[in-house]
Amino acid sequence: MSLRTAALRAARSTSSSRSKISLSQLSKRGYSTPSSRPTSSSWRQQIATSFAVGLVGTVAYRYLSDNKSQVQCDGAPLVEAIETHGYPWVPVDALEKDDPQNPMRIRMATWVKSLQDHIVKTMEEIESSVEPNSFSPFKENPKFLKDTWIRKEGGEGSSCVLSNGRVFEKAGINVSIVHGLLPPKAQKAMLPDHPSLPEPKETKPFFATGLSIVIHPRNPHIPTVHLNYRYFEIENKNDENQQPITWWFGGGSDLTPSYLDEKDCIHFHNELKKSCDKNDLNYYKEFKKQCDKYFFINHRNESRGIGGIFFDDLTISSPINQINQNENGKPKTQEDLFNFIKDASSSFLPAYIPIVYKHLNRTWTEEEKRWQQLRRGRYVEFNLVYDRGTKFGLHTPGARIESILMSLPETARWEYMTPVGAEGSNSPEEELQKVLKNPREWV
Amino acid sequence: MSLRTAALRAARSTSSSRSKISLSQLSKRGYSTPSSRPTSSSWRQQIATSFAVGLVGTVAYRYLSDNKSQVQCDGAPLVEAIETHGYPWVPVDALEKDDPQNPMRIRMATWVKSLQDHIVKTMEEIESSVEPNSFSPFKENPKFLKDTWIRKEGGEGSSCVLSNGRVFEKAGINVSIVHGLLPPKAQKAMLPDHPSLPEPKETKPFFATGLSIVIHPRNPHIPTVHLNYRYFEIENKNDENQQPITWWFGGGSDLTPSYLDEKDCIHFHNELKKSCDKNDLNYYKEFKKQCDKYFFINHRNESRGIGGIFFDDLTISSPINQINQNENGKPKTQEDLFNFIKDASSSFLPAYIPIVYKHLNRTWTEEEKRWQQLRRGRYVEFNLVYDRGTKFGLHTPGARIESILMSLPETARWEYMTPVGAEGSNSPEEELQKVLKNPREWV
Repeated sequence: MSLRTAALRAARSTSSSRSKISLSQLSKRGYSTPSSRPTSSSWRQQIATSFAVGLVGTVAYRYLSDNKSQVQCDGAPLVEAIETHGYPWVPVDALEKDDPQNPMRIRMATWVKSLQDHIVKTMEEIESSVEPNSFSPFKENPKFLKDTWIRKEGGEGSSCVLSNGRVFEKAGINVSIVHGLLPPKAQKAMLPDHPSLPEPKETKPFFATGLSIVIHPRNPHIPTVHLNYRYFEIENKNDENQQPITWWFGGGSDLTPSYLDEKDCIHFHNELKKSCDKNDLNYYKEFKKQCDKYFFINHRNESRGIGGIFFDDLTISSPINQINQNENGKPKTQEDLFNFIKDASSSFLPAYIPIVYKHLNRTWTEEEKRWQQLRRGRYVEFNLVYDRGTKFGLHTPGARIESILMSLPETARWEYMTPVGAEGSNSPEEELQKVLKNPREWV
Repeated sequence: MSLRTAALRAARSTSSSRSKISLSQLSKRGYSTPSSRPTSSSWRQQIATSFAVGLVGTVAYRYLSDNKSQVQCDGAPLVEAIETHGYPWVPVDALEKDDPQNPMRIRMATWVKSLQDHIVKTMEEIESSVEPNSFSPFKENPKFLKDTWIRKEGGEGSSCVLSNGRVFEKAGINVSIVHGLLPPKAQKAMLPDHPSLPEPKETKPFFATGLSIVIHPRNPHIPTVHLNYRYFEIENKNDENQQPITWWFGGGSDLTPSYLDEKDCIHFHNELKKSCDKNDLNYYKEFKKQCDKYFFINHRNESRGIGGIFFDDLTISSPINQINQNENGKPKTQEDLFNFIKDASSSFLPAYIPIVYKHLNRTWTEEEKRWQQLRRGRYVEFNLVYDRGTKFGLHTPGARIESILMSLPETARWEYMTPVGAEGSNSPEEELQKVLKNPREWV
């Protein structure tokens, strides 16, 4: 059974109570450009001042507005369909099969929801495989807390968070599906990272969806892992076929161990590489380089972890997609890139889970826990100081802070001039530091 | 014995082995404008690419340079005098008495060094007053780790940090004395916060000195406290009398409790107010307001703590100094403002220490510790996301990161949708939250 099929089956088994509205209805009702919607001055005002997000890093729904009451997050339970300020939105149902007839926004939203369900289920299976322990002494197997909501102005979100796990200290698996209007100023702010964006002149409708995962295990020998895949498009208000003006994919996945296990690094990178190679032999090398560049804690002059892959603004006209054609010898299509996204995000579990199981029963010392906590401190530094998605979210009034900061570890530590891992200590901690200072090629 | 005298006595008793060079020598040799110094192309290059700092928040020496080898921090031990790349620097000696004949840069540097010695001594006395405990089981009384260094390009620094205390989880008391050249771009970056700065046209020599304190106690019933006082001037290269083109004072002090004790808040604010009122009856009200505004965690829509005082760019021409004259009925002088800085910074110990002793023997529950750790998480969020000094330092290549991040607590915690302190829980934790959401007037 392929991962994709597994994801869909997992989704089916858990979401049968959800919407029965078909995808064709959804694509007509659930997402349409504002010009086709009922208007009222209050609605216009709301939309005009709202703005949503790069979806870089943590994916949550956020907007920009001076009036906080307009951007209230309500955490309302997911319902079958909701009339939201004259803006009808039907939750995307992971139960639906991918249908190439649907617009990409629907296909990607369906994909990330399916994958979210599947990964949540897998993580819960790992929790169940371990006996209750001092961290989680309860008989019941630890479960994710699931928050779903409809965004008043259009869209939906779903945060799945595990705290108090037997294996995982904190695991967050978030999906968000957002649409709204993007003022020229907001478009300009995106330009540096997204050169494919046309010259921003007027407010344009946009759509964004993504899956974001951060998993912090308790055991210092099991690495922290991060994943984020996202799709963004800017709409053409006047196009009846709803073809976007521009669109791109972004994302990646990277590993942050406290202790270096070279075999783990090789395995993790190898799985990512396989998913890249299947689609383009240039992808892995380039996206690995971009990952090392992005996940870098500048003020420490060290990487956050041992890398993975990372890319942004990936479209058919991206330079890297000009080199190779697709497997049929034709220029790449959006379908080709979507296949890559599916392969790359599907490689998450085979890349990470074997590492979890490998170290699951290892014990650890107080010193090893201390080092893990110090590394968690660095993780907090990266996320709060550098991560574009987190920074953007924090500076966006009305953002759902709990979802944005879900990526932070449960606990972290800072010591002044810590002796742990010091240069010349020839310790396992120093061994990791060396790799963080000089990123390696793992495959 | 006044605090000032006490500070000087404490300084004398601990620094008799230091420099015997007189202040007059110091003011001639220790600080002179670059034009009077020996030049070499490498020195010129170093200075031209270097840039130092707002000294807002954490005070450490930092510069901006693409060549990291030029900005190496060496943590070299403080010596009597050092020839540093043709740039002579004699460490400022707290042993010296304040002499109104000296330029303000020397007087302020002498003051902050004296106060640092005094506060370090007081904190060590508190540690000694408590028996060894599980946090610090050793017989020897916990002591501050003292790092002093000479900055190659001119200036010095001294970090005093206590870890593993019986009472304090982490306490940092930093002094820095920095001079160098400030390019127009760097001056421009300072303009929004410092309207007294003249139109930046050419590179100008500057001098900055400050004292920065953050103290995180172990006991959740003892609040965290922060202090920072600083003096900054931009020199007139052509003035033989070394009169600066512009100068200002900045700083303040604020309290961050995990649990609200209204009497503590009143006491803390009252001591600060007394030190303000002694100098200007308008100061406290204005600086309290500025403090509430500055120490605000925007994305949480709450204050970091219960406030205190905060001001920046305080000069004789500041609007607030145009209202009242000094006690002799004359326009205020730099001397008047220096007296205020001395009074305000001297009020730190009487404002904080009684609160420490009051709660020193209180026990705490696991739940109270958990809440303190969650509050520490908010402290980390403020410092990494908003604090201007920290942000500036982190983005300045070659900055001494250990000094900048000394302000972070030893441990912190983040929980997704934490139930602790939740709205409607009518808990002591919610009581604090309410005050953080709606800052009060305490005196």
